[in-house]
Order: sequence, then structure tokens, then C-alpha cells
Amino acid sequence: MKFDFTYYNPTKIIFGVDSLNHLEEELNRFGSNVLLAYGGGSIKRIGLYDKVVEILKQSHKNIIELAGIMPNPTYNKVLEGANLVRNHRIDLILAVGGGSVIDCAKAISACAYSPEKDPWNAYWIDYKPVSHQVVPIGTILTMVGTGSEMNGGSVITNEEEKLKKGRVFSANLYPSFSILNPEWTYSVPKYQMVSGIFDIMSHLMEQYFSGTDDNVSDYLIEGLLKNLIVNTKKALQNPQDYEARSNIMWNATLALNTLVGCGKEQDWEVHSIEHQLGAYTNCAHGMGLAAISIPYYKMIYPYGLDKFVRFAREVWNIDGEGKAKESIALEGIAALQEFIVSSGMTTTLRELGTTEEMLPLIAESTDLGGYYKSLTHADILKILKECY
Amino acid sequence: MKFDFTYYNPTKIIFGVDSLNHLEEELNRFGSNVLLAYGGGSIKRIGLYDKVVEILKQSHKNIIELAGIMPNPTYNKVLEGANLVRNHRIDLILAVGGGSVIDCAKAISACAYSPEKDPWNAYWIDYKPVSHQVVPIGTILTMVGTGSEMNGGSVITNEEEKLKKGRVFSANLYPSFSILNPEWTYSVPKYQMVSGIFDIMSHLMEQYFSGTDDNVSDYLIEGLLKNLIVNTKKALQNPQDYEARSNIMWNATLALNTLVGCGKEQDWEVHSIEHQLGAYTNCAHGMGLAAISIPYYKMIYPYGLDKFVRFAREVWNIDGEGKAKESIALEGIAALQEFIVSSGMTTTLRELGTTEEMLPLIAESTDLGGYYKSLTHADILKILKECY
Repeated sequence: MKFDFTYYNPTKIIFGVDSLNHLEEELNRFGSNVLLAYGGGSIKRIGLYDKVVEILKQSHKNIIELAGIMPNPTYNKVLEGANLVRNHRIDLILAVGGGSVIDCAKAISACAYSPEKDPWNAYWIDYKPVSHQVVPIGTILTMVGTGSEMNGGSVITNEEEKLKKGRVFSANLYPSFSILNPEWTYSVPKYQMVSGIFDIMSHLMEQYFSGTDDNVSDYLIEGLLKNLIVNTKKALQNPQDYEARSNIMWNATLALNTLVGCGKEQDWEVHSIEHQLGAYTNCAHGMGLAAISIPYYKMIYPYGLDKFVRFAREVWNIDGEGKAKESIALEGIAALQEFIVSSGMTTTLRELGTTEEMLPLIAESTDLGGYYKSLTHADILKILKECY
Repeated sequence: MKFDFTYYNPTKIIFGVDSLNHLEEELNRFGSNVLLAYGGGSIKRIGLYDKVVEILKQSHKNIIELAGIMPNPTYNKVLEGANLVRNHRIDLILAVGGGSVIDCAKAISACAYSPEKDPWNAYWIDYKPVSHQVVPIGTILTMVGTGSEMNGGSVITNEEEKLKKGRVFSANLYPSFSILNPEWTYSVPKYQMVSGIFDIMSHLMEQYFSGTDDNVSDYLIEGLLKNLIVNTKKALQNPQDYEARSNIMWNATLALNTLVGCGKEQDWEVHSIEHQLGAYTNCAHGMGLAAISIPYYKMIYPYGLDKFVRFAREVWNIDGEGKAKESIALEGIAALQEFIVSSGMTTTLRELGTTEEMLPLIAESTDLGGYYKSLTHADILKILKECY
């Protein structure tokens, strides 16, 4: 049992319907120049943009805007933001939106005053630590899934190199504060909502399907998965169910704030494959994960049979009485598949804009990994073909 | 559903067999004068004292010792420590031991430079916030249960006033770092070990038995309870089972680092009753909790029936098929009782040195609370008599 770890997470989470009321108090801890980073128009549509600008003005901040941060944020956008940070001597990057906006903010913070000549290569290819002075980040979360509001993760797409790469920064790049109000997620379109939900689910499963031990984390993850399944059903029936949306929102944060991974081996291969799928198709991240997961788990379950049996029993309540381990495990994967289909998630890459020609390119460019089974590029191609 | 909260926990946890190797690196962040706070001789017996002193010397620290911190640390001991802090201009309080030592360290830190004339009344009776400059705390944990290594809790006994009072300081009094090595818990006597385990269990149950909602926290707590039950059995069979002791140690931290309580009503009445039991008998905290819990839950379960049914099913795997809710709930409480007895925990106050005359005094001096049922002093006396 690998049970040695360091856990340090200094992000302050402010959660609830009135959480925005705490923004002013948080802003007081930082200097005057704020980079307001956001995506498309959704924060304007729900009236959040106006509220945030009002609070910034009340707090006597100079607002510099970085609008138009796209889903799968690009390295070029990062460089644009880093330029603004330097030119306006930014004291705080306030990211308002979902994971893409927050990931982009972290990347901007790391790159703005980086001593590296080529920050892309240094941070996303060579995973160098960031030890120079960075710009603090605050977030206001409106879309749920990535967990970026309470971790150091930053997934950036380099369009020129056709690479979508995630890296995890250390705690100096965790948001200083994150403000979460479940009501802001009400108007997220169903497609984006379920995509985010599968992202959460995949974070949990990718930390779960590894190891042969019996770790606190396994129990926590089972609890989070069960909570997520129950509340997804509720939220699909009534998108304005505050309790369900609260559960999903907080579940997402806990799924990837590094806590449930403590002392545990992990297998992030599904994410690795999806990142290259995303680099080629720009698809919704969670939908890509949903499509890849079923053939991936069908390929690896024989090598981690006991854990897949446990998954079936504990998460999906499958009665294993008198059945072979193999069938229990497969029933668990079938239950997962049924959840994917009934929630309106994607099961084929074709729906995500993938062409047959892309499959070998995606397979070849994916980082190899895997825990129960070490994958080859040929294995990845097989997985991609199976869900094509 | 009350789902509004702030979560902020800046304690760095360093966990594992080699975790002490990180002490020097942590010490470098603080000034030269270290107050080394510990209890009796146990840290000397296991050789930890010598190792810590060696690392402190290598780090060129001036060591000032505060030895003899007792279980149920007294306010007089706190004042003794505060005096040392002021006289030696202490830069870091390094608490080596269990919850009592760490609780005492927090109290010393709060009191040393307090502007309050009477810190006891200010902090433990009136729960005033601590906003003045405090002395940072680091911990090296050798006994498991209180969770004090990653929270602001500080339970102090005022002998003159016969009051044992807990309070929760804000994040400025959380330990800066806590070093946890499960091997240090191997030599804890069985009585202390199971007492600590019931303390963990009670922390989890006191956050669980409240509310009518269906919260992420409920699922996390069920997972932690199941993990604790499984690993307690393993650790009782083999106290040197590293995996089991690791699970219990990390479980204890998670049970009371405020995370599983986020967005949830809580009911700390069992702790309130035990605190006064402790003030009169100086008994092992977890043993007091174990004795009180069964009559307490038998009294309140009809008012929170659905949650007790859920507890029976989810935590104890009780098959509810065709049974009335009432019987399922009672089977759950019976399973808890069986766990208490088979683990060698205490079920009567008599074993803890309580006399019959003390019962009304304990009942009258206990703070009133309760969630499913608001308790009266008469209710508390009834509970105490039932487990006397």
C-alpha cells in the first residue's frame, strides 16, 4: 500500500446562494488592478457580469478585461492574457466561468512573469515547477465539472502543435478563493451539464480503478459516485433543484481537489486519450471521456477484477450472490453504460466530430499510461475504433 | 437544505513512514526559538523525542521544553506554556503527541499575547474570535482520534471551575503543518487506541445524525465509518498492520478537519455530555463517548427515524426487507453497540470512575443542545443513569 503523501490545499471555498456577498471582503486582500477573465456571453446573460463589475467598482478596482476565453483554451489566449497582466501590473486575476476560464487564468499567472523562454515547453511538456512570483487568482464558478476551482490543474491546447496537455501546478497556483453558487449553474445547457457530470465521474473513477489495497479514498470515492448518480437523476428531472445542483457542484470540487487521491495510485489514461481527442476535435471534454470510458474499462477490467467487482457492488448495488466475479464486473460496467446513455451523454466519437482518419493520429499522439494494464498505442487505437 | 458554507483549511499534512524527513524543511520557514511541547514519556520511549531534538539542533533552533502536558490538558498548563512563549520569544510551537498536546499548543498560542484580561472566559466561555498575532504551530502526531492535527479545535479543562470546554479557533490557529507516521501509533496501549477510535466514530456520527437532507457529507461519512469499522478489526488483530493503522490515522484527520461537515447541520450533544463527564472523572475521552452514545441514540432515534434507518442499511449492511423502520433503526444501534463491546470499548460510566453522586452534577453542568430532539437536563440525567 502506497500510503505516503503530502496534502496541502489553501483555496478558500465560499459556497451558497449568497456567496457573492463575500467577494468584496476577498478583494480587499489584493491590490487595485484586476484582470477580469471570462468566456463567451453566458455570464452576461445570467446577470453575473454586471454584479461582479459593480462589486469591483465598489471596491475601487481598476478593471482590465480578458473576454472570449474559449472551451479548450489555447496557448495563444494564455499569451494574450499574460501580456495584459504585465502591461497593467495586474494584482489579481478574477476568473468568472467554468474550468476553461480558470485553467486559462492559472496558465496566465504562471506565464506572465516566467523566467522560461518557452513556457509551453517548460510547463506543459517538461512539467517544470513554477517557483517565481505568480499573480494570485480568484474564481467565480458558473459551470461544474473540472474541479479547477480548488486545484492546480491547467489544461491548455497548443493549436500549432495539435496538443492538449494538462499539468498540475503546486499550491502557489491554486485559486486564493473560489465563490460557488449552485444557482449560476441552472442555465447551463443540458449538453454542457451532463458533459461536466461525466467529467466529475471520470475524475472519481480514474482515482478509483488502481491499486490492490483498501484505502480510505476508495470509500470516499464510492460515496461521491453514489451521491453523483442520485443527484444527476434529480437535476435532469428538474434543473432548478437547488439541493441536487448543490450536491453536484460540491461533489465536483471534492472529486479533484487532490483529497480523494491521497495515498493512492491513480490511472489517468482516459483523460490522456480524451486530451488528444480534444486536440483534434475540440469536443466537449466530458462527452469525450464518456465515449472512451466504456471500451477502456472493458479492456482493463480482467486485470483489476476485484476492484471492478467492488465497483459493481458498492456503487451500483449489484447483487453478486452466486455469480462469477467476471459477470459481476461486467454488470457494473453495463450499469455505468446505462447511466451514460440515460443521462444523454455521448457514446460514439462520430457524434463528437471525429473522422476515421483522425483515429490513428489521436492514438499515436496520446501519452501512454494505465495501471491495471499498461496501454500501447495499438490498444488505444482499438479503444477508439470500438467507440467510433 | 442548509448548503451554505465557507471551507478553508491551510494545514499541510505530511503523511507516511518517512514523513519526519520533511520536518527540517518545514522548520526552515520559522524563526529560531521553538517551544517543544509534549506529554508524558511515551515519545521518549518510542525514540521520537531524540529524533526530533536532533533535527531541531541540525536546524539550529533554540529548544525550550514544555513537558508533562496531561490528557485533558488544564488551563493552568496553558498559562505555564504562554509564559514560556512570552519569556523566550517563541517563533514556533512544535507539539509532539496526541490531541491533548496539540489542543494545549493552540490554547497557548491564543493566550500568549492575548489582549484579553481573562482569556479563559473570552475564548472558552464567550467564544470570542482571536484576531491578534498568534504563534504558529506545527505538530507531530503520535496518537489518533481528536483530529486536532488539522483543525482549530482546542478542548481545555478548567479545574477550578470544573469545566471542560471545547472551542474551535479560526484558520489562523490551525497547525501550519502536521507530520503523521502511522508507525508511531503502534505502541499506543489498546485502551487508548480504541478510545481514540471511538472518538473518530463519534465525530463522524455527530455530523451525520442531523438534517433531513441528502448531502454529499452523508455519503462521505458513511464511507469513513465503513472504512473505520473494517480497519479497527484489522488493527485489533494486528496492531502493527501498517495499512490498517494508516487508514485509521487518515480517517481520523478527515473526520474532523471540518470538510465532512460542510453544508450540514450538526449535533454535538454527545461531546457536550462527555466534556462534563471528563471534567468530573478525567476519563479517557473516547471511552466516555462510547458509554454515552448508546443511550443517547436510543433516546433520539424516533425523532430522526429515516436517518437511523439509513445508518443501519448503509453503514452496517442491515437487510431491511419487510421490516418496520423502527426495527431497522434499532438493529443499527444494536450493531453499533456490538462493535463497541467487541472492540473493548466502555459501556458504563462506573468503569470510568463516575460515582452516583456525580450524575446530577454532570447533567446540570452540560450545555444543552441536540438536533432531532432538543435535550433537557432531565434527559441528560436519564442518559447518564442508563449507562451508569
